[in-house]
Amino acid sequence: MDYMQELIELLGDERVTTNQTVLEHHSHDESYHTPRLPDVVVFPQTVEEVSQIMKLAYARHIAVTPFGLGTSLEGHAIPYEGGISMDFSQMNQVLEVRPHDFLVRVQPGVTRTQLNKELKKHGLFFSVDPGADATLGGMAATNASGTTSVRYGVMRDQVRDLEVVLADGRIIHTGSMTAKSSSGYHLTGLFVGSEGTLGVFTELTLRVYGIPEATTAARACFPSVQDAVDTVVDILSAGIQVARIELIDERSIRQVNLYKETSYPESPMLFIEFHGSEQSLAHDIEFAQNIAAEHGCQEFLFETDSKARAQLWDVRHNMAYAFLHKSPGKKMMVTDVCLPFSELAGAVVDARQAIDQSGLDGAILGHVGDGNYHVILMIDLDDSDEVARAEQLNAHLVEYALSRGGTCTGEHGVGVGKAKYQRIEHGEALDVMQSLKNVLDPTGILNPGKIFGA
Amino acid sequence: MDYMQELIELLGDERVTTNQTVLEHHSHDESYHTPRLPDVVVFPQTVEEVSQIMKLAYARHIAVTPFGLGTSLEGHAIPYEGGISMDFSQMNQVLEVRPHDFLVRVQPGVTRTQLNKELKKHGLFFSVDPGADATLGGMAATNASGTTSVRYGVMRDQVRDLEVVLADGRIIHTGSMTAKSSSGYHLTGLFVGSEGTLGVFTELTLRVYGIPEATTAARACFPSVQDAVDTVVDILSAGIQVARIELIDERSIRQVNLYKETSYPESPMLFIEFHGSEQSLAHDIEFAQNIAAEHGCQEFLFETDSKARAQLWDVRHNMAYAFLHKSPGKKMMVTDVCLPFSELAGAVVDARQAIDQSGLDGAILGHVGDGNYHVILMIDLDDSDEVARAEQLNAHLVEYALSRGGTCTGEHGVGVGKAKYQRIEHGEALDVMQSLKNVLDPTGILNPGKIFGA
Repeated sequence: MDYMQELIELLGDERVTTNQTVLEHHSHDESYHTPRLPDVVVFPQTVEEVSQIMKLAYARHIAVTPFGLGTSLEGHAIPYEGGISMDFSQMNQVLEVRPHDFLVRVQPGVTRTQLNKELKKHGLFFSVDPGADATLGGMAATNASGTTSVRYGVMRDQVRDLEVVLADGRIIHTGSMTAKSSSGYHLTGLFVGSEGTLGVFTELTLRVYGIPEATTAARACFPSVQDAVDTVVDILSAGIQVARIELIDERSIRQVNLYKETSYPESPMLFIEFHGSEQSLAHDIEFAQNIAAEHGCQEFLFETDSKARAQLWDVRHNMAYAFLHKSPGKKMMVTDVCLPFSELAGAVVDARQAIDQSGLDGAILGHVGDGNYHVILMIDLDDSDEVARAEQLNAHLVEYALSRGGTCTGEHGVGVGKAKYQRIEHGEALDVMQSLKNVLDPTGILNPGKIFGA
Repeated sequence: MDYMQELIELLGDERVTTNQTVLEHHSHDESYHTPRLPDVVVFPQTVEEVSQIMKLAYARHIAVTPFGLGTSLEGHAIPYEGGISMDFSQMNQVLEVRPHDFLVRVQPGVTRTQLNKELKKHGLFFSVDPGADATLGGMAATNASGTTSVRYGVMRDQVRDLEVVLADGRIIHTGSMTAKSSSGYHLTGLFVGSEGTLGVFTELTLRVYGIPEATTAARACFPSVQDAVDTVVDILSAGIQVARIELIDERSIRQVNLYKETSYPESPMLFIEFHGSEQSLAHDIEFAQNIAAEHGCQEFLFETDSKARAQLWDVRHNMAYAFLHKSPGKKMMVTDVCLPFSELAGAVVDARQAIDQSGLDGAILGHVGDGNYHVILMIDLDDSDEVARAEQLNAHLVEYALSRGGTCTGEHGVGVGKAKYQRIEHGEALDVMQSLKNVLDPTGILNPGKIFGA
């Protein structure tokens, strides 16, 4: 029997499709990487169905690529060997909120805004904010983070337990509902960030937080990137609990001014958010303001009211659009490296020089409390010279980071785009990773081509 | 050639010993578990020496058990198949402090107090405090935590990179110096907590923190354990950054009063420590005090001065001694389970009943912000009935935790003591752990008998 027929017997014909539009939707993510159609898209609704699909795929050596909402940025969701794209949009229930445990159990297709809407009723929130409204399964698969990880940690820090279906269809739980454990190997940490190459997630138990009493946002301008980064180091040294701390470089602000006809000071800018009680925030802001002044801060504005806060963050939110607007028809290429704090300022200055020398244009923004920054380039994918220059630039940024104790990706993951840097970054540890992959996915059916390359 | 001779050729005869006193010192840890002599103790000084020793052991199928200071509590350091005890006391250098990166590089034999002494010069501190002055290599091996993990996280949260020597002598690095990464599998998290069964650590890169501007300690008494735990949940919900939050039950305080001739109120007691700026602390304490009052708190004392703080924590520090003192000749049996917060109060009440019913006596204390509590029993190891009752009690506490979403060990690790609970806790995930063990240690020479049992 044909495996399509077997899939239909398992799921019924409404949840197994080879419709061209659906295949195309599952052929790409938000990246510039070359699309590839899956042979079939399936929509499981239960862990048992996922297990049956995996057993079938395992027996017949068919590739399986999990698909959340396709917001990944390094080609993670692209099924490079065809086969099955496993879409989790019908496993999108918030299963249980446990307010006194600061925990929630969700299916992998739940998005973070959907979860936060549900949590708000309990005075709770989920902290990881990667920008896109990704699914939580996808965020766990790539170990996503974003603006708030300086305070609350990355995705891996939030996941207490995963229900995982292995390549051969076995179903395991990797953790428990406790805040900590020293019992057995930390499988949760291994599966988070494994990008669908070790198993498929069917349920997540996540840590959540009480909504802070008050939130204040601040924006500060500095004479140089170094001054801005030094301010961040001093703020963190003092133990001030900033919830977000973002850097945008001078060139990027100039683009926002052009696009929005605004007149923001064209100098490196920090965006800071504080969470806490009203009284402690007042103190934290005063402290941060003094530190910023010591580093030559020319303007320090802050707002507590939610509308005024949004206004203050306007520059940050408009930055990608400002560059998109000026480049119609081009595709966004985002790269993401992370360095030790002490190397970040130098890296950002070097990145700006490298962008200028490449003849390309683009934004630099950083989750500076993590040592993480992104370069957003607008490129014409039909212009092979432009693509080559963008790839050279990307390689330069990665090599700069790796030679200074950094990593080739702070939060976007490896996918296909960063696979070529894995050996340089990990050395012989890559062989250990490959041996773990081989033991958990002996026939290589789980998201082939990702992390380890083709 | 005899392998002892080979070891002597590698290290010289001063760092290879079969001296009986040294063998005995390496035959046990601080637990009640049965000692076993190693055949030889070696004292490597470099990663290359560790690699050579592992190559030799790998070729000859000789067991290797890493040894820090022997402060483990579940038999981790006991070489149950004899062979080589690898002592890290001559790899005890703080290699590099990077204040602007909030990082330190250390050898595995450095102890936490040694590290903190060095860090203090830079206004920094290392957060994990398991009580004992353990080595950092040992703390990483067991994923140690302790009183401060409610705020700063457990050992796994602090380790950015490990240099690991694998079973066959290969040397790898598991991470980088960055605050986050999505590059490749999270080997750091896998090796932390692996208890010497997957590889031997030869260097650690650890996260450190700025010493807080101010510290305040508080002590609060409650009508019931439930009231105390509810207070903790409300404090954490409000986002107040407590640095430590410890619970001691009524019976334990009575024992301190007997031992120290004090008159502390004999009711469940919370010990709380706050870190922050002076102004934010004043607010946090007021807030916590109000929450405690809502839950029937009868006495809430706090102190900022370091001497007065120590006085306030006197009960907590004297508790183990209070029970030791009353039981001359007995051995301490400590057990350690962890539950979701909502189950903690019930677990502590149940534990006290179970202790009373067993005819044994002992203390209950908990890192209540983590859902983690310990029972400390004094037992006569020559009294087989007493030992049997203690083991039954231990089993009861573990089963209570496991049936409520908990884990059999929050911070002490599995060693030999909790090996029998691994299948119940992890189910088929234990097979995944075993398959990882098999691929990284195919001949089973790395700390045999631990985690998976004999």
